Amino acid sequence: MSSTETITNYLARRASEVNESLDKLLPPAEVHPQQLHRAMRYSVMAGGKRIRPALVLTSGEALGANTAELMPAACAIEMIHTYSLIHDDLPAMDNDDLRRGRPTCHKAFGEAVAILAGDALLTLSFEVLASTTLNADRRIRVIQEFSVAAGSKYGMIGGQMADIENEGKTVSASVLERIHREKTGALIAASAAVGAIIAGAQDDDTERLRGYGQRIGLAFQIADDILDVTSTSEQLGKTPGKDQAANKATYPAIYGIQASHARARQLVDEAVETVSTLGRNVSLLQEIARFIVARTS
Amino acid sequence: MSSTETITNYLARRASEVNESLDKLLPPAEVHPQQLHRAMRYSVMAGGKRIRPALVLTSGEALGANTAELMPAACAIEMIHTYSLIHDDLPAMDNDDLRRGRPTCHKAFGEAVAILAGDALLTLSFEVLASTTLNADRRIRVIQEFSVAAGSKYGMIGGQMADIENEGKTVSASVLERIHREKTGALIAASAAVGAIIAGAQDDDTERLRGYGQRIGLAFQIADDILDVTSTSEQLGKTPGKDQAANKATYPAIYGIQASHARARQLVDEAVETVSTLGRNVSLLQEIARFIVARTS
Repeated sequence: MSSTETITNYLARRASEVNESLDKLLPPAEVHPQQLHRAMRYSVMAGGKRIRPALVLTSGEALGANTAELMPAACAIEMIHTYSLIHDDLPAMDNDDLRRGRPTCHKAFGEAVAILAGDALLTLSFEVLASTTLNADRRIRVIQEFSVAAGSKYGMIGGQMADIENEGKTVSASVLERIHREKTGALIAASAAVGAIIAGAQDDDTERLRGYGQRIGLAFQIADDILDVTSTSEQLGKTPGKDQAANKATYPAIYGIQASHARARQLVDEAVETVSTLGRNVSLLQEIARFIVARTS
Repeated sequence: MSSTETITNYLARRASEVNESLDKLLPPAEVHPQQLHRAMRYSVMAGGKRIRPALVLTSGEALGANTAELMPAACAIEMIHTYSLIHDDLPAMDNDDLRRGRPTCHKAFGEAVAILAGDALLTLSFEVLASTTLNADRRIRVIQEFSVAAGSKYGMIGGQMADIENEGKTVSASVLERIHREKTGALIAASAAVGAIIAGAQDDDTERLRGYGQRIGLAFQIADDILDVTSTSEQLGKTPGKDQAANKATYPAIYGIQASHARARQLVDEAVETVSTLGRNVSLLQEIARFIVARTS
C-alpha cells in the first residue's frame, strides 16, 4: 500500500487480483457440465470483499512469501467460503433469496444445482490446494489448516450446526462466542495462519497471525450481527433482520448495539497489538483489522 | 483370501476392518455438535458393502503396501461416497426415503442436518488424507486423485449434474456411458489407482489398476441399473424403480436387460485380463470384478 492508498483501495486492488485468479481456476462456463459450472461462477464471481484471500496474501507477504505462491490458497479459501454461503442460503437452511444484491444460487439455478455447486466448490478447493508449486509438506499443512477450519469439530460446519441447534433458544454469551468463533472465526484465523505457513514462518509467527485472525474473525461476526440489525436491504445486499426473525443468537441481542460495538473495537485493538512485532506490512494487517469494524459505523 | 474363503467372506472381513477404522476416524457422537456427528455416523455406519475401500486395500496390498498405510485412504473414499449418497437422497435431488434399508439421513435428522453432514464428511475426508503417516508427496497425489474423481469436470459431481440435466430426455449410449463413468466409475477407478499410489507403484501399474477400476466401475453401475429394474425394495434396501419413475437414463432402458448383462460381463472380463500380469493377490482383484456382476444374477 503506497502512502496515499487507502485500505479500501488496497482491498479493492487485492480483490481484483484474486478475481482474476479465480476466473482461471474455476472451470469454464462452456465446459461440461455447463449449468453447474455457470452456477459455481455465478456465486463465486458475485463480488464479495475477498477479506479471507486478502488475509492470506497480506499475512504471507508480511513474512516474505510472494503473491504467486499465496494466490492458490487465497482462491481456495474463497471457494470454501462461497460454498458455505450457497448451502447456508438453501431453503432447508436460512432460506435466503438475496445474496450480494443478487438472487441466491438456488433462486437462480434451482436447489439441486445449488447443492451440487457448493459440493463442487468445496471439492475444487482441495484440488487447487493439492496442485500448487509449493513443496509437498507445505501443501499438506495448508490442507490440514483449511479442512479443520471448515470442519465439524472445531470449525465452520460445527458453528453452523450449533447456530441451527440454538435457534429460538436463549444462549449464554460463551455459547454465542463459540458459535461465532467456529462459524466465521475459524476460516478467517486459518487464512492468516496459512499465509504464514506458505511463507515458511516460524511457529510463533504463525500462531501470532492465527491469534490476530481469531480476534478479527470474531470482530467481523459481531460487525455482521450489528449490520443485520441496523442496515437496509440495499446497503446489505441481502435480506436484513433475518437473524432476529429466525431467533438467532446475536451479539446485539445479548449485549445491545453499543456494547457490541465496544467489544468489536476491543478485539481489533488486541489484533493490532498482536501483529505489532511482526515483519513487513504490519500496518496493512492493522488497517485491515480496523476496516473490519469501520464498516459498521 | 485363504483357499477356502469365498469372495463374499473376504469382502465381509475387509468391510469389518474398514468399519472399525471408520469408527475411530469419525468424530464421537457425544462430541459437539452432537446431532451432526450422530447424523454422520448414522449414514456412514449404515453398513454398505465397502467396495471402494476394499479396492484401495486389495490393490495396494497387491503391489506391496501394508494395510495400515492404506486404511486412511480406504476410509476417506467411503466418507466421500457416503456424503454423495446423503446429498443425492435429498428432496431437491432424488428425494429418496430409504437407503440401505433405513430412513435416509434427511428423513432421520432433517434436511439442514443432512446437508451439513454431507459437507462435513467431504471435508473430513480431506483432513484424514492430509494427516496420514505417508510421505507428503504420496499424500498429495492421493488428494489429487480423489478430488478430481469427486469433482465437477471429470468426476462424480459432473456425472450427477449430467444425470439431472438429462432426466426425461432420450440420451445416446455414449452420453449414458459418460454419465456412468463419471458418476460411479470415477471414484471406483480412483480407489484402485490410489492403492497403487500408496504402494509406490510404477506409473504403468497405477494406470493398469485405474483401467481395471474404470471397467468394474462401469460394470457396477450397469449392475445397479439392472437391480433397480429387477429387485424388490427388501432386496435392494432402497426404493426400486426410481430410475424409471424419474425417467433417468439407464442401461436396461437403452439396451434391454439381456444386453446390459452381456455388456457388464464383457467389462468384467476385460478388467480380469487387465490385472492378470500384476503382482500378488491378482486373483482377489479378479474375484472382486466377478462379484460386481454376480450380485445381479
